[in-house]
Amino acid sequence: MNGKVLIAQGGGPTAVINQSLAGAALEARNYDQIDAVYGALYGVRGIVDEAFVDLSNESVATLEAVAATPSSALGSTRDKPDDAYCQAIFRSLKAHNIRWFLYIGGNDSSDVVRIVSEQAKAEDYQMRAIHIPKTIDNDLVCNDHTPGYGSAARFVTQAFMGADLDNRSLPGVYIGIVMGRHAGFLTAAAGFGRHMPDDGPHLIFLPERAFDAQAFLADVRRVHDHLGRCVIAVSEGIHDGSGTPFVTHARQAEYDPHGNVLLSGTGALADMLANQVKVNLGIARVRADTFGYLQRSFAGCISDVDQREARQAGEHALRFAVAGDTDGSVTIRRTGDYAVSFELTPLEDVAGKTRIMPDEYIAASGTDVSEAFLTYLRPLLGSGLPTVSRIDSDHRVKRILAETERG
Amino acid sequence: MNGKVLIAQGGGPTAVINQSLAGAALEARNYDQIDAVYGALYGVRGIVDEAFVDLSNESVATLEAVAATPSSALGSTRDKPDDAYCQAIFRSLKAHNIRWFLYIGGNDSSDVVRIVSEQAKAEDYQMRAIHIPKTIDNDLVCNDHTPGYGSAARFVTQAFMGADLDNRSLPGVYIGIVMGRHAGFLTAAAGFGRHMPDDGPHLIFLPERAFDAQAFLADVRRVHDHLGRCVIAVSEGIHDGSGTPFVTHARQAEYDPHGNVLLSGTGALADMLANQVKVNLGIARVRADTFGYLQRSFAGCISDVDQREARQAGEHALRFAVAGDTDGSVTIRRTGDYAVSFELTPLEDVAGKTRIMPDEYIAASGTDVSEAFLTYLRPLLGSGLPTVSRIDSDHRVKRILAETERG
Repeated sequence: MNGKVLIAQGGGPTAVINQSLAGAALEARNYDQIDAVYGALYGVRGIVDEAFVDLSNESVATLEAVAATPSSALGSTRDKPDDAYCQAIFRSLKAHNIRWFLYIGGNDSSDVVRIVSEQAKAEDYQMRAIHIPKTIDNDLVCNDHTPGYGSAARFVTQAFMGADLDNRSLPGVYIGIVMGRHAGFLTAAAGFGRHMPDDGPHLIFLPERAFDAQAFLADVRRVHDHLGRCVIAVSEGIHDGSGTPFVTHARQAEYDPHGNVLLSGTGALADMLANQVKVNLGIARVRADTFGYLQRSFAGCISDVDQREARQAGEHALRFAVAGDTDGSVTIRRTGDYAVSFELTPLEDVAGKTRIMPDEYIAASGTDVSEAFLTYLRPLLGSGLPTVSRIDSDHRVKRILAETERG
Repeated sequence: MNGKVLIAQGGGPTAVINQSLAGAALEARNYDQIDAVYGALYGVRGIVDEAFVDLSNESVATLEAVAATPSSALGSTRDKPDDAYCQAIFRSLKAHNIRWFLYIGGNDSSDVVRIVSEQAKAEDYQMRAIHIPKTIDNDLVCNDHTPGYGSAARFVTQAFMGADLDNRSLPGVYIGIVMGRHAGFLTAAAGFGRHMPDDGPHLIFLPERAFDAQAFLADVRRVHDHLGRCVIAVSEGIHDGSGTPFVTHARQAEYDPHGNVLLSGTGALADMLANQVKVNLGIARVRADTFGYLQRSFAGCISDVDQREARQAGEHALRFAVAGDTDGSVTIRRTGDYAVSFELTPLEDVAGKTRIMPDEYIAASGTDVSEAFLTYLRPLLGSGLPTVSRIDSDHRVKRILAETERG
């Protein structure tokens, strides 16, 4: 049966999401039964609106150039479709004779694929619906890791390598806020760039552990007393024991239309933590940065491994769709050191679930990552990470004046 | 006359400041009259405290590795020495038989070199004092540009390339706050990554033009009405007609010990501007990032041209010091397209002065940069800038359902 492929992109962009798009679009050219490859503009919203572009005639050169470009080239959406919305999606797919539907996104997106898949089955409409994983949060279950995470993690690693050097040069307290509402994987990457015992970040606060402001201050004081400085990585999603995000305590806390407290695109958490350190510990030089959108879209900080896997995820999705007879989510399994395989996993196993950092990736202290995590992360960051070095400060010159004055 | 070289680093770190250090330290090995090369730890503070490391025995490999490392390897300081402090510096230099004093820093640092130079002359102590330029702000007079600027500008360029793509994918208003208290050069670099007419940033607010909150809102509304989105680059130093920094209007404004309002290391300005857009224009999706310390120390975003010139500035400083008979500041002159020469300029011409963007680099609108600026900036960013591409959206598919419903 002939028909068309539709590809859409949902949720937050990543540095490599267009690799999956290009992978699927180019792979589709190998199959006679595929009449055209459509792209939906602005995710599911574009499907309902029939805002489609025909990718069939895009040159390979254009698709390759788009693949290397960060952020969702088709546009994305934050819409979270309910059943009626999904019915409208399905109606549009049917009208355009879409027989292979590929949706690149996170766990919300996989749930959309699940619902649309069920509706197609219920109406006996022959269509394969495949979810292609994508999220910088690395929070999809059934996956060793997700496309998009490696590049964002690389940004966070390089950012903390630099921030730690900056803080060594002008000592004080530095706080960097990293994305991740529930899963600490991205924040944890802050710990990768360390190579000397006193390298920072010296403290890493993950959403997998309850955040206690008093313990935080005690930790900062201890490190600062010891080293004369302290670099801290903090997940934007840190929360107290009851699960209330810590940022809700900020004067300037803001909320999105769903009533969720806004974590990104605001410096509220950073400024609040910095202020607590200043006021309670009396440390003069306290600086806080919120990495914000740079960490997911910065042009020119891409893991080549992440890039390749995102491409392969798109290619495999197309093959699973055309050759297979079941819907599902493409998942990544680690099969060697370092190698991966791509599998098709039932949508209901992935959809709407959130994976958090396993305990073995978190240090016993609760304020650092474990060696096991660093081993896990290493290959995902890709090749050519910058290295840093320091002067051998053992060659200290003997004081003259101070000696004279003392003598 | 034999003696020692002393090198120190002052002010905010840059991505290439260690190139100047390595350049001077390695160049010094060619001169028999140089007995040793010392580095002062934490800038002028380390000179007064006689906290010196002997760099003479550091291997070339170590110095090259340090050169490639961002941030001041010797440590830096924010101390602004007065005459008495400079006397203490001079006393330490004399005690250690320093005959060539090289200080890598911005315009405050050049003023320290000027004062120490005068003190040496007054006491008839034979010593050459040379200032090596360094600042991401690009605000030193007598220089076409300064080492450190190209790499920071590259970060800002790449950041806005990504942020604009992110904003295209999830449309709304995005505000990025860039460093620069008085000079807009670094913020201006945000405009370099654009290649299509609707690419952002669509508005650039520089400290060279008075900031008017009402005009700002009108500009944002106009762009948002036209494109459905708006990306804005804002200098942290924007101020009203009287010169009062705009951030002082923020509830959470903070001040440093000198009474200057804190511009970096806080999200106050970003959050205030975002809030004004939300409240006054009723736009739902408004996000603001403060680029903070990432823009000056991020590991892995370095302009090769900047790197090379910082190295050469250090090498030339050492040569000027040993071979010449006058103190001065190493300055960079553009001599071709693209080539530079390094000259020695009297310290009093550079010291304590601030260069701002010339009018011809600012668009007539006052909210953008000119072509002349982009031409000026191009070579400084170095080679291998990432490129971005988009899908050709001319291939739009004809609607089916919408047509049926209308018919």
